[in-house]
Amino acid sequence: MTTVGILGGGQLARMMALAGAPLGLRFLVMDTAADACAGQFAPMVVGDYTDQEALAEFASKVDVATFDFENVPSESAQWLTDHVPVFPNPRALATAQDRLAEKTLFRQLGIPVPEFAAIDSRNQLDAAIATIGTPCILKTRRLGYDGKGQFRIRTAADAAAAWDALGAQAGKVGLILEGFVHFERELSVVAVRGRDGEFRTWPLTENWHVDGVLSASLAPATVDAALAELAASHARKLAEALDYVGVFALELFCRNGELLANELAPRVHNSGHWTIEGSETSQFQNHLRAVLGLPLGDTRMVGHACMLNWIGQMPDALALLGEPGGHWHDYGKLPREGRKVGHATVRADSPAALATALGRVGERLGRQSQVAPVVAALD
Amino acid sequence: MTTVGILGGGQLARMMALAGAPLGLRFLVMDTAADACAGQFAPMVVGDYTDQEALAEFASKVDVATFDFENVPSESAQWLTDHVPVFPNPRALATAQDRLAEKTLFRQLGIPVPEFAAIDSRNQLDAAIATIGTPCILKTRRLGYDGKGQFRIRTAADAAAAWDALGAQAGKVGLILEGFVHFERELSVVAVRGRDGEFRTWPLTENWHVDGVLSASLAPATVDAALAELAASHARKLAEALDYVGVFALELFCRNGELLANELAPRVHNSGHWTIEGSETSQFQNHLRAVLGLPLGDTRMVGHACMLNWIGQMPDALALLGEPGGHWHDYGKLPREGRKVGHATVRADSPAALATALGRVGERLGRQSQVAPVVAALD
Repeated sequence: MTTVGILGGGQLARMMALAGAPLGLRFLVMDTAADACAGQFAPMVVGDYTDQEALAEFASKVDVATFDFENVPSESAQWLTDHVPVFPNPRALATAQDRLAEKTLFRQLGIPVPEFAAIDSRNQLDAAIATIGTPCILKTRRLGYDGKGQFRIRTAADAAAAWDALGAQAGKVGLILEGFVHFERELSVVAVRGRDGEFRTWPLTENWHVDGVLSASLAPATVDAALAELAASHARKLAEALDYVGVFALELFCRNGELLANELAPRVHNSGHWTIEGSETSQFQNHLRAVLGLPLGDTRMVGHACMLNWIGQMPDALALLGEPGGHWHDYGKLPREGRKVGHATVRADSPAALATALGRVGERLGRQSQVAPVVAALD
Repeated sequence: MTTVGILGGGQLARMMALAGAPLGLRFLVMDTAADACAGQFAPMVVGDYTDQEALAEFASKVDVATFDFENVPSESAQWLTDHVPVFPNPRALATAQDRLAEKTLFRQLGIPVPEFAAIDSRNQLDAAIATIGTPCILKTRRLGYDGKGQFRIRTAADAAAAWDALGAQAGKVGLILEGFVHFERELSVVAVRGRDGEFRTWPLTENWHVDGVLSASLAPATVDAALAELAASHARKLAEALDYVGVFALELFCRNGELLANELAPRVHNSGHWTIEGSETSQFQNHLRAVLGLPLGDTRMVGHACMLNWIGQMPDALALLGEPGGHWHDYGKLPREGRKVGHATVRADSPAALATALGRVGERLGRQSQVAPVVAALD
């Protein structure tokens, strides 16, 4: 009997537990919130991630540990690593936690990135704006996600407001200025690497964000095979450089047909949720297989898939459940503004059938604007 | 928040909970054994099904109740029905519990059945053997499953031994004599009926038993469309006659190209496990949808699928996990002779690809004899 420990008890941990049950695995989830939604299907340890006693209890009960979010305090990740096998390794986690370290690694590996500069002072900010040009984005090096901890600078005159908003973070989590990318497409490679170095990617995913939060994902992406191969090779380089074990996502921009690396998410990823129904093996099960040193499952697509994210509150399930190929995912969370509460995946046998199904789903759920860019891409 | 109560905490309850989580459902499982395998993923009430106090606790915490096995004491099912909505209804359960009532209903509905007779005494047994002919099988009317509580009568001279073995049950659960069917094929219709009467079947399934226990299932079955339609229409008649709500399986023999009804299983069924990966909607999720009055999901196949049952102990997972299209299901049970501990489903895009994959799986797992009849049927 193998017990997998998951730090963080959100929807990613929940879907991991559901995907791991058929492998005969047991789970233990640690979260600061007693009502974390993974706790509905797995036993929990409730405690702060820096609480040594709670961590010790967690570690004593699991055979291997992994994460459902990347912002685990690095001391806690290190402590865990000293007591139980932990995948991905703390270095991968630390790199992904720090936008500067991450982008520096991308560059070292020859993976093109948007212009960026570390910012420690107002003077540096002004200098960097002059070099990188506007528009650009001032971001915290750490702890930002889904568009939080970011300030968009449209002209050099915005520098003061940006510094007012985030300058206090310069001495804490650090800041980075990034050139704004006028992209045609946002893409992500969802990939998995095993303990033995076996590496697989799912077909490239195309993503649409609204207010910095993922709104829709389409797989396979509507790009040519050479671009998809290049994206996969970037992901492989990254995984090998970090000796990464488990699933991760590499988010990319596509500008003038060129790929620019945006971000590494060192975990199962929202843009890979479509793999539950749209692929032979889901990202959740393959993450567990990787972490446990088991053979990786087939990442081939089963048809064409589009995932629609539900933010804040769930739409009416009844409108989707009757749709052939429609799959509902309610995370069992209470509604709250900006919260990821669920998603739906629509699967079809061809791009045209998927577009038709999405049009119908958009109308039934009153989500026409959410499906519109996906339908346009499929055209 | 909706909580579904399941009486019985075996693998069927476990797979129901896993399939229901994405619908945002919660579960409460009642079982006599504290280590029932569904309890690894759902909270439990431990108690005997006739324990009024435990039943009352169970009923007070759930919005709707259903079953993972059919031999719930009818008083308990009735008591529950008086306190909480229960699907399927107790009449359907009672009919399926009693081979005589079941076969009588089949006959009333014009569904062909093997010859049968109720047996209350040794004299009746002799008379029935004379009428039905040998070989035939003496069975308990109730509580038998997977070949238990049965005695095969090869010649009239076996009557004494049969009566010795089962005669004592005549006054308790009752006995039935059934003509033995020299079938070419065993088939099952896995079907679902909603609260509103909506009825769907999955593609017809072909089954192979070893020692009375399901060994392998193939879908779609290798029969012509007219036979599959007839089987589905038998299932529909039965569901409508019983005002059945939920998933059930109708097991059939095929003899000289004719269908004979064998048994009604009033629950999700072992021969429908392939629907998890092989169909757009699994039997487990559709059972929950039906029970909750939600729209039913699409029952179309996704490719071709074969399920292999693991009895007694799990084979080595490593041998299957690397197989593209191979899906592992370990129920988290301790090994025990004759116990259903897991299954695997192999999915492929064509019958030929499925046959090839099964050949490979059979060899890797040392289960050549288990896959052989399926491969032969696919040829």
